[in-house]
Amino acid sequence: MKKYFIGKIIAASLACTLALSSLVVYGNSVSAVPSTNAETTTASVATTKAPKYVFLFIGDGMSYPQIQSASDYLGALDQEEDSKILTGGKALSFMNFETAGSATTFDSTSFCPDSASTATSISTGHKTYSSVINMDETLTVSYETIAEKLKEQKDYKIGVVTSVNLNHATPAAFYAHQPSRNNYYEIGQELIASDFDYFAGGELLNLNGKNGDQESLHTLAEKAGYDVITTQAEAEELTKADGKAIVIGETLADSDSLSYDGDRASGEWALADYVKKGIEVLDNDKGFFMMVEGGKIDWACHANDAGSSIGDTLALDEAVKEAVNFYNQHPDETLIIVTGDHETGGLTIGYAGTNYDTYLENLENQKISYAKFDSDYVSKYKEEGTSFEDVMKDVEELFGLKMSGDDNLTLTAYEIERLKAAYDKTMSGEEVDENNQAEYVMYGTYEPLSVTITHILNNKSGINFSSYSHTGLPVGVFATGAGAESFEGYYDNTDIYNKLASLTGVK
Amino acid sequence: MKKYFIGKIIAASLACTLALSSLVVYGNSVSAVPSTNAETTTASVATTKAPKYVFLFIGDGMSYPQIQSASDYLGALDQEEDSKILTGGKALSFMNFETAGSATTFDSTSFCPDSASTATSISTGHKTYSSVINMDETLTVSYETIAEKLKEQKDYKIGVVTSVNLNHATPAAFYAHQPSRNNYYEIGQELIASDFDYFAGGELLNLNGKNGDQESLHTLAEKAGYDVITTQAEAEELTKADGKAIVIGETLADSDSLSYDGDRASGEWALADYVKKGIEVLDNDKGFFMMVEGGKIDWACHANDAGSSIGDTLALDEAVKEAVNFYNQHPDETLIIVTGDHETGGLTIGYAGTNYDTYLENLENQKISYAKFDSDYVSKYKEEGTSFEDVMKDVEELFGLKMSGDDNLTLTAYEIERLKAAYDKTMSGEEVDENNQAEYVMYGTYEPLSVTITHILNNKSGINFSSYSHTGLPVGVFATGAGAESFEGYYDNTDIYNKLASLTGVK
Repeated sequence: MKKYFIGKIIAASLACTLALSSLVVYGNSVSAVPSTNAETTTASVATTKAPKYVFLFIGDGMSYPQIQSASDYLGALDQEEDSKILTGGKALSFMNFETAGSATTFDSTSFCPDSASTATSISTGHKTYSSVINMDETLTVSYETIAEKLKEQKDYKIGVVTSVNLNHATPAAFYAHQPSRNNYYEIGQELIASDFDYFAGGELLNLNGKNGDQESLHTLAEKAGYDVITTQAEAEELTKADGKAIVIGETLADSDSLSYDGDRASGEWALADYVKKGIEVLDNDKGFFMMVEGGKIDWACHANDAGSSIGDTLALDEAVKEAVNFYNQHPDETLIIVTGDHETGGLTIGYAGTNYDTYLENLENQKISYAKFDSDYVSKYKEEGTSFEDVMKDVEELFGLKMSGDDNLTLTAYEIERLKAAYDKTMSGEEVDENNQAEYVMYGTYEPLSVTITHILNNKSGINFSSYSHTGLPVGVFATGAGAESFEGYYDNTDIYNKLASLTGVK
Repeated sequence: MKKYFIGKIIAASLACTLALSSLVVYGNSVSAVPSTNAETTTASVATTKAPKYVFLFIGDGMSYPQIQSASDYLGALDQEEDSKILTGGKALSFMNFETAGSATTFDSTSFCPDSASTATSISTGHKTYSSVINMDETLTVSYETIAEKLKEQKDYKIGVVTSVNLNHATPAAFYAHQPSRNNYYEIGQELIASDFDYFAGGELLNLNGKNGDQESLHTLAEKAGYDVITTQAEAEELTKADGKAIVIGETLADSDSLSYDGDRASGEWALADYVKKGIEVLDNDKGFFMMVEGGKIDWACHANDAGSSIGDTLALDEAVKEAVNFYNQHPDETLIIVTGDHETGGLTIGYAGTNYDTYLENLENQKISYAKFDSDYVSKYKEEGTSFEDVMKDVEELFGLKMSGDDNLTLTAYEIERLKAAYDKTMSGEEVDENNQAEYVMYGTYEPLSVTITHILNNKSGINFSSYSHTGLPVGVFATGAGAESFEGYYDNTDIYNKLASLTGVK
């Protein structure tokens, strides 16, 4: 890929040089990627002040469809009912950033890459195989991450925040180096060894090792000097003076992650609260770097749950707003980047069955994530052998889909038939046969009833998914503040690291 | 929407002012959108040289999925067979442009907008209802287009090039003003009245009016002083000295458009040739504006024909390269913009049935567009009652799909069943029942056999479509040259006009 980035730099330099001959310095700083153009680096370093406070938000699985659908959903809710002229979406905060570039996401395995390898690219500037964390394709060379470099070389404080498990692939890619993302216990050990200042998110997976026979990662963390906090009350009390901390959400949801934003109880911390606390404890004169992952956008899209994808994308936006508040106090020293690692699910705003129409406001009827519906309802249905009729009463209450009526949420005969088949499959307790092509495309590895409910609600809203996996769409790279202009253009995700390293001056 | 564009400008100005205090002029020129920020406009006009040569390429239906899939397809073909490390896509020329912003595409009717309304937004800066060309929602006010303004106010020569009919919605939006895009004859009359210098593309629809009883648009054009050219030999001979010209492709394909790029005969002009000729005849000291539409990317995606979408996206890229050649001779006076009007088809690089794998190289086996397959093969099958077995021989030759074998192109029992059902439906001659939800989702309004062939080939390549209509994804806006920096960020498609008008100084 390198050749087209060199071409890009030449084009950018040329255009800026010619069109703005007195402003060459700015042109050079735009194209400063040290690995490909040594000449311009010097100019860049000389003229662009290194951002002292760096926020990197990663919406896992969040590409243009996730962002635009969240924006359009807000617009649909805001649309005046009697107006016959559509007024469009409502911009998320980062859609207003002055820079909005794009990054390609392929990894060494596939055009539909993995979160481990894509986070490795963002964090270290290297491609690798799917499921590998910060190691090369031979699984022998480890790469140092931007977070580690900023800590070592610049004495920045470091924060890692995520809505999923703190040793999940994306957060791990900022502190761990493992041949497999599934080495959760080893990743947890590396988390502790990182000596980073603030971790916040879901519980560590394999807390006592794969076989449950090793010393608790909590205990190990405490021995290493971490304050391990597991209640919200303690988290609220945490101050800078307390030293390095690992904050685990008190309320844990599917796979011990934080709750989907739409499932949060009243008063339960949102992602934005963990970020706000992070800013409070990391703020210091030498600077900080905080990576924040909206990890359940990805999980929602894997499950083809558009309502939860939108909910968690909006929750990430609320977290970004905390960074924007900080930026407003330190505008010349703060850089905020918001990006995704890859697209998940092949979400489209539009569906064959609804043609040119969308009914995004229908998604307001979804009161629960697919995951909470699975755990709180479907498990009971299976235990109790609940009838289809009774299940459908819950479905109407929780998703708005009705057995009779005359509005857009009323199920057609064809949809009822699909739901009934899915209900039967779920109640049978049989697993989906992955070798049965038609069945796998219908249900993936999800609970047939739940995924069919969200499929039908999505489709009735004018939304569709094409996959249960990641897809090859590029991601947006939104930037504001010191050095934001570096993130213009269409480049590879490894250049996110290159640009960050160049701006902050780490080697 | 206005409020977030104001926010954006303030943020952009602030960031540039603070980070680059000596370079405020450039910062202002970035954010110069006269309708929302009068203060910065003066600075902009004073400091940014108006581009004298403006190219506006519009890939109809071309958003990120169409671009990235074309890029990834080239990469897949280029991938060394024995390498176990994927090396990624190959950038199209415009992916290297220094600016790569995004634009929202909703219109006054829907988040899944129409080509008439979106082209109106790009051409005039106004939203309107789907299917309306350069008129407001009351259908009483006409809007003047950027092309008309550049001709009148700046004496630029004007060119309009398209791979579809010259009076189709997108080209029409640069010269016509009609309550309906279907008023083809009236649009043709406006084409003639525009007095623009160079038109090139597919034949005018309704050449003799809706009922075939009106004077030929060719005759009217000749009477108005146009050289109407209908052979490639004549087109090759056309020079600047010949005056204003309408060049109609000699070989016409579906709906009298130009051929899909993959269907072109050897020696038959590609879109790039029409652009090259356009540059030759439009080039003059006062400047020119050329709009070039890759119109059949949209048609291919409506029909869910990924191979033809990729082929025509690459053909648009070849046309862009002609503009880049011109830019290289006039780098400080040329602006090239490449964008789309909306996404079509909900194309995803990834599919439930292939999970994290793609096999884009499979698409190389497609030797014909769905449309040419319909006209040259399916019509014969229907006439002659060709057997399924014989049809499948053609399908193997033309699309690579095999009834037996052991590679990725071998049809599964499930796929054969789908093809057989589609064949039966096609041979029955019955139309698809649009009220039968399941059947409509399967076939849309397309020939069941053809659309099932492309669906299966797409899916076996790791590609999927979710719709036969347009979708709500934003489009990329790629720019290089004089004023390119204005096109940074995530904005509405009406701002493409606003930025162009501001840069060229038209009112």
